Amino acid sequence: MNAPSDSEVTRRLASWLVASRGADIPGPVRREAVRSLLNWVGCTVGGARHAAVDSALAALRPFAGREQASLLGRRERIDILHASLLNGIASHVFDFDDTHLKTIIHPAGPVASAILALGEHRHIGGDAFLHAFILGVEVECRIGNAVYPQHYDVGWHITGTAGVFGAAAACGKLLGLDETRMLWALGIAGTQSAGFREMFGTMCKPFHPGRAAQNGLTAALLAEQGFTSSERVLEAPRGFAHVMSTARDFAEITGGLGAHYEVSLNSYKPFACGIVIHPAIDGCIQLAKEHGLKGDEIAAIALKVHPLVLELTGKKTPQVGLEGKFSVYHSAAVAIIHRAAGEREYSDEAVRDAKVIALRDKVAATADGAVREDEVFVTITLADGRRLERHVEHAVGSLERPMSDNDLEAKFRGLAEGILPKKQTDRLIARCWEVEGLPDICDLVESATVR
Amino acid sequence: MNAPSDSEVTRRLASWLVASRGADIPGPVRREAVRSLLNWVGCTVGGARHAAVDSALAALRPFAGREQASLLGRRERIDILHASLLNGIASHVFDFDDTHLKTIIHPAGPVASAILALGEHRHIGGDAFLHAFILGVEVECRIGNAVYPQHYDVGWHITGTAGVFGAAAACGKLLGLDETRMLWALGIAGTQSAGFREMFGTMCKPFHPGRAAQNGLTAALLAEQGFTSSERVLEAPRGFAHVMSTARDFAEITGGLGAHYEVSLNSYKPFACGIVIHPAIDGCIQLAKEHGLKGDEIAAIALKVHPLVLELTGKKTPQVGLEGKFSVYHSAAVAIIHRAAGEREYSDEAVRDAKVIALRDKVAATADGAVREDEVFVTITLADGRRLERHVEHAVGSLERPMSDNDLEAKFRGLAEGILPKKQTDRLIARCWEVEGLPDICDLVESATVR
Repeated sequence: MNAPSDSEVTRRLASWLVASRGADIPGPVRREAVRSLLNWVGCTVGGARHAAVDSALAALRPFAGREQASLLGRRERIDILHASLLNGIASHVFDFDDTHLKTIIHPAGPVASAILALGEHRHIGGDAFLHAFILGVEVECRIGNAVYPQHYDVGWHITGTAGVFGAAAACGKLLGLDETRMLWALGIAGTQSAGFREMFGTMCKPFHPGRAAQNGLTAALLAEQGFTSSERVLEAPRGFAHVMSTARDFAEITGGLGAHYEVSLNSYKPFACGIVIHPAIDGCIQLAKEHGLKGDEIAAIALKVHPLVLELTGKKTPQVGLEGKFSVYHSAAVAIIHRAAGEREYSDEAVRDAKVIALRDKVAATADGAVREDEVFVTITLADGRRLERHVEHAVGSLERPMSDNDLEAKFRGLAEGILPKKQTDRLIARCWEVEGLPDICDLVESATVR
Repeated sequence: MNAPSDSEVTRRLASWLVASRGADIPGPVRREAVRSLLNWVGCTVGGARHAAVDSALAALRPFAGREQASLLGRRERIDILHASLLNGIASHVFDFDDTHLKTIIHPAGPVASAILALGEHRHIGGDAFLHAFILGVEVECRIGNAVYPQHYDVGWHITGTAGVFGAAAACGKLLGLDETRMLWALGIAGTQSAGFREMFGTMCKPFHPGRAAQNGLTAALLAEQGFTSSERVLEAPRGFAHVMSTARDFAEITGGLGAHYEVSLNSYKPFACGIVIHPAIDGCIQLAKEHGLKGDEIAAIALKVHPLVLELTGKKTPQVGLEGKFSVYHSAAVAIIHRAAGEREYSDEAVRDAKVIALRDKVAATADGAVREDEVFVTITLADGRRLERHVEHAVGSLERPMSDNDLEAKFRGLAEGILPKKQTDRLIARCWEVEGLPDICDLVESATVR
């Protein structure tokens, strides 16, 4: 286990971070980072009014500092440490944010939540902001690659445990830390790495990326002021990769730094539910749009799906919105009727809608081991006897068929509706696309808050 | 592994915490808790001016909240979340705080740092404060007992990882949480459990109990406002005891609750160095006091010690204060000359003192496998040929020979010297002894701060 790549892992990573120049990062990488940011902003605005955010704000505001940073999708301002926590919670509360499929890390949450708060406070330019974002995502995903899947199998929520390193690295870059202080920032971050998968299904799940953002930011601020840590947090026998995983490959962290970027492998969910139902929703929306289906002309919907679909989402008669996310039947019905499957289509109202229930009851799904996870065969039989068929080879949102810029914008608008005025949403989307050229990241933030 | 004791572990603990009444706790238990508190206050005042505290305060103060709570041994006030962090760092920075020998947890730091900040803000009475302290120590030590030593062997700094539960439980008790909210507080605490032993020797070591205090307090505040978590954080397959340890015994958590209290097993370090040198220091101080030794009348000092003493503290010619802590030779010399081995005797000046160096060079130590860890044989040969001998069976500070109240006071005075005026130190010590009768814990806090 002591290959040359096992020594000085943390130092080599820190050294690269300190030396990295934004101008060296290829255009397509920067473009994918902008798409990741746009998707994250939409998710954060959309989740801003969730009870988890309300509850955390009520609990912590009496002890918070000055109004230094904004909460997206809300009116309140708060100190940067709490802003990073609360935006991080909001961004993941719908489980609708981005996914680095190699590690199932949700990369944007910990990193963007931290640097947006710090960046707003320090009036960072959009170019430096995007550069820090790319580096933060790089660090968390590389560390994830080094320990996945064993680390996840142990029971760690990798978005929290790896995310804290990404937040520290990105904040450290914005603060201009030297190599030693960057090492300390990574060390202080690592020794706060935490979050159990046991928390899935509770408010603690989105708490993990929020706390990772806050803890990573704290780590960078402490390091800047000379707070010391081990300089071998990743590779030491009692450090992260040995303590928190049963296997590790340090070459994933130190190999090819700067030659490729993990943000290029980021993906975005088109639908607000578990990824296994996405092919079915995609196929149903396609047929509904092409044939102008409304629902009541349909006699039957037959789905041939990967076996996991029925295992995970076989709920036939969901009663509340959250259960709808675990029902391929409900999902297919809303896909036809609403041609969408966003948060609204998984509300309690949507699940109890008589029209949706009527169509849901006409959906049959059969598992077939020959069907891939991102594949589906949809057959819709109409009342007049016609049969409509669609084979989706790769669902939208997969790496093979990524969401288009227009798809991302549509998702964003769905999330922002009811929270920001439509004109403001348009301006916010524009600010996200042009982030690299913004003289001050505050120009983006002000479009994302409620006045 | 699924004995009856493995189910509902967290719930049984939470239920007991909620039902616990201070009046049910036996007097001797309360007395030991008062001694633990006194020792912790002294250590915290003593560590208050350390660079780790200065650095953390400089880094975080710009983002902190209102002046709600005090930093012991300092002039500044800050919000309760940061106060718990900073007092926690100060209390452990000299590694001179209390030790639960069964788990080597330093119990007071995470718990007292959290409830002192909360208690000051809410003007809690001393009786409720001490009750919460006892419960917090109970929770962290029981959780430690359940996973020690395997959890520690994995690489976790148990004071941080178990301490966060203790802080949450104690704060939850002060907040009057019901059973469900107490469960959530423990859950939110557990999913922040963190801290690598890799950090030993850096500022991150004392950061662990500080952050555990802050995170535990945060957990209780969040739970109070309805922030949800798993209700099985301790026993779930992807919860604390399975994820963070290779073995576990849940009966240690749920057995005999209320029948005995872990704080009764707390111990206090009389000397500011690793516990293995304590017998030698003890023996030398005893002989120096009894025979009025000054150092220059001594021809030779011979120590027969447990083998670990030479392994861990065999440094013959320490150059700086910190190295002095790893030198049984230096330690024996200051024990004779200063009749003490506090932080002052491990300063750079003390290590470079010509008189100390001269005596240090006359010390010889031999390892003997038949000597226990808390035992020593000291033989001092004087210039006039006389031989003085002392066999210490159990060093002062061990459970068999605990520090007396007077010993604790003397240690406290040594720590507070140069930080608080002598009269104020006297008053503070008195406030600690009478804590149970204080109508408001602020009466203690105000004596511990610099005006």
